[in-house]
Amino acid sequence: MTQPSDKALVPFVSVDNMMRLIHHIGIEKMITGLAAEIEADFRRWESFDKTPRVAAHSPHGVIELMPTSDGEAYGFKYVNGHPKNTSEGLQTVTAFGLLADVYTGYPTLLTEMTMLTAMRTAATSALVGKYLAPKNATTMAMIGNGAQSEFQCLAFKALCGIDTVRLFDVDPGATAKCAANLAGKGLTVVSCGSAEEAIEGAQIITTCTADKKYATILTDNMVGPGVHINAIGGDCPGKTELHRDILLRSQIFVEYPEQTRIEGEIQALDPDHPVTEIWQVITGQAEGRRNANQITLFDSVGFAIEDFSALRYIKKAIRGTVFFEPLDMLADPDDPRDLFGMLMRAV
Amino acid sequence: MTQPSDKALVPFVSVDNMMRLIHHIGIEKMITGLAAEIEADFRRWESFDKTPRVAAHSPHGVIELMPTSDGEAYGFKYVNGHPKNTSEGLQTVTAFGLLADVYTGYPTLLTEMTMLTAMRTAATSALVGKYLAPKNATTMAMIGNGAQSEFQCLAFKALCGIDTVRLFDVDPGATAKCAANLAGKGLTVVSCGSAEEAIEGAQIITTCTADKKYATILTDNMVGPGVHINAIGGDCPGKTELHRDILLRSQIFVEYPEQTRIEGEIQALDPDHPVTEIWQVITGQAEGRRNANQITLFDSVGFAIEDFSALRYIKKAIRGTVFFEPLDMLADPDDPRDLFGMLMRAV
Repeated sequence: MTQPSDKALVPFVSVDNMMRLIHHIGIEKMITGLAAEIEADFRRWESFDKTPRVAAHSPHGVIELMPTSDGEAYGFKYVNGHPKNTSEGLQTVTAFGLLADVYTGYPTLLTEMTMLTAMRTAATSALVGKYLAPKNATTMAMIGNGAQSEFQCLAFKALCGIDTVRLFDVDPGATAKCAANLAGKGLTVVSCGSAEEAIEGAQIITTCTADKKYATILTDNMVGPGVHINAIGGDCPGKTELHRDILLRSQIFVEYPEQTRIEGEIQALDPDHPVTEIWQVITGQAEGRRNANQITLFDSVGFAIEDFSALRYIKKAIRGTVFFEPLDMLADPDDPRDLFGMLMRAV
Repeated sequence: MTQPSDKALVPFVSVDNMMRLIHHIGIEKMITGLAAEIEADFRRWESFDKTPRVAAHSPHGVIELMPTSDGEAYGFKYVNGHPKNTSEGLQTVTAFGLLADVYTGYPTLLTEMTMLTAMRTAATSALVGKYLAPKNATTMAMIGNGAQSEFQCLAFKALCGIDTVRLFDVDPGATAKCAANLAGKGLTVVSCGSAEEAIEGAQIITTCTADKKYATILTDNMVGPGVHINAIGGDCPGKTELHRDILLRSQIFVEYPEQTRIEGEIQALDPDHPVTEIWQVITGQAEGRRNANQITLFDSVGFAIEDFSALRYIKKAIRGTVFFEPLDMLADPDDPRDLFGMLMRAV
């Protein structure tokens, strides 16, 4: 049997290896590293090919491909969204991703991205929080205590200096799970019985609910001046979390307006409602928070560049480690015209 | 370390296993099986989500994602096209593919597709040849003797009863390679010094050249009445193989007009030039070859449904065999809301 060449072997990071890598680096340190990579890529936003994700919808959920490229590397993420999965003991969202070399077209990394997406989503939220949240914020309300919640809490601790989180979920079991997972992680954790109670004294409100039937989790009278809202659960057509009146009182920041107007909270607003692109805040081209009384809202849906940043982070992070295995994924005959000869020699 | 659940493990077919599987089944038998799968899917053409491929172009080549779904399964192929790669000892085209369950969104198969694409392209060509080539065709001219050529020759032997192939390539080394690979495979192989010589006495002409600089490999005066032309090398904007006048004399058959008008030979014609969709010939809704003197032309660019058929064929073919390995690609915690807990338990 001919041995595959180096170029034909694609480094693969399994779920098991991703978890080992996260512990090897440290959760908060890795989230901070991912945020730095995302911030650097947002600074060069205009050098990316940007295209809305390619979605295959069905009555059961959606399967999406999210590609992007900076001209040197190409990345895409496969991700599904099936809210009904939870009731069947499956993940709502699973994902994997691939990085390739634009010059040769050859893949250079394949990795699980369910864990990695949770890490990069938290990193993006906290990175944006660093720019928009009121100064000296110490307390975050975490509404929706599902799979993403602990990652969010630790990201805001690591990047924004949050020391207290106030948890609420319509399912008290989810809150108990989140509180237990956060025990001993350096945060004061307060479990609350209602969304109203959770946002008491919070300078940052993160909403991350998955189920369409609890569509409006924040109403207008609940949100006082000066807070930063990090809305990550409204991320597909028909699925929003905030009452329209809150949007109208907020200065709204988005990743990529073309996508957010379809998928985000702002689908409830006029298509020309003004929004600020977060990359422009990071480069200084646009203003962020204007004063201490303003409500800032990050209407986050997740964008391909964040996955690209995460893929490149992983590619660098695994170098020289044992946290990947080479995958024999590409046929690479000695003579590129002789694919058939390669097949024959494999007898 | 928690063991991943069954659903979290995705069967992966490496290049090595794909080659073993092909030999286990037999090349011609597998091509015939792939053609049957493609034919069955072409018969239910209207049940597929069809979308043009998503292409990322660069000066060096193109990287494409080709998704489709029949409502139950979802498949996509990653494929690059880098004609300059050959001169650097790399494949022009490499590919891998994925099948997923529409109901859960969970991937169910990951496989190399460089070998598999060569097999499915040959299967598609010969399937179409079965419908369009003149009755009792015995001889095929194979112009362009690169990576795809041997697969084409064996496919037309298996499905159309071809017993003689006449080879030509601008590079005599490629012809020698192709002839050597086909020795002992049950075909009479004639190496020719020109395209004109190759098409002498051939009822079927297959063109499969990769290089843009030899753009017109068949001129009008070379092609007599009654032949079937299987044109597979013209498959991206600016890349065609046939002189426009041949197109004007032919009845043209395509996979998916929306894509072929951009990528195929017919990009040289008016956008409303009549073409016949091959699936309609297969279902009997449209006429194929009308008489013995007509030139039929299959302007093939490769379509996502063919990859879907190939992926489903492989998924069935590996069942109960040793030709795959389980890949730990999806995080699947016992409690789907407890991704963080899964991570913590991995310490």
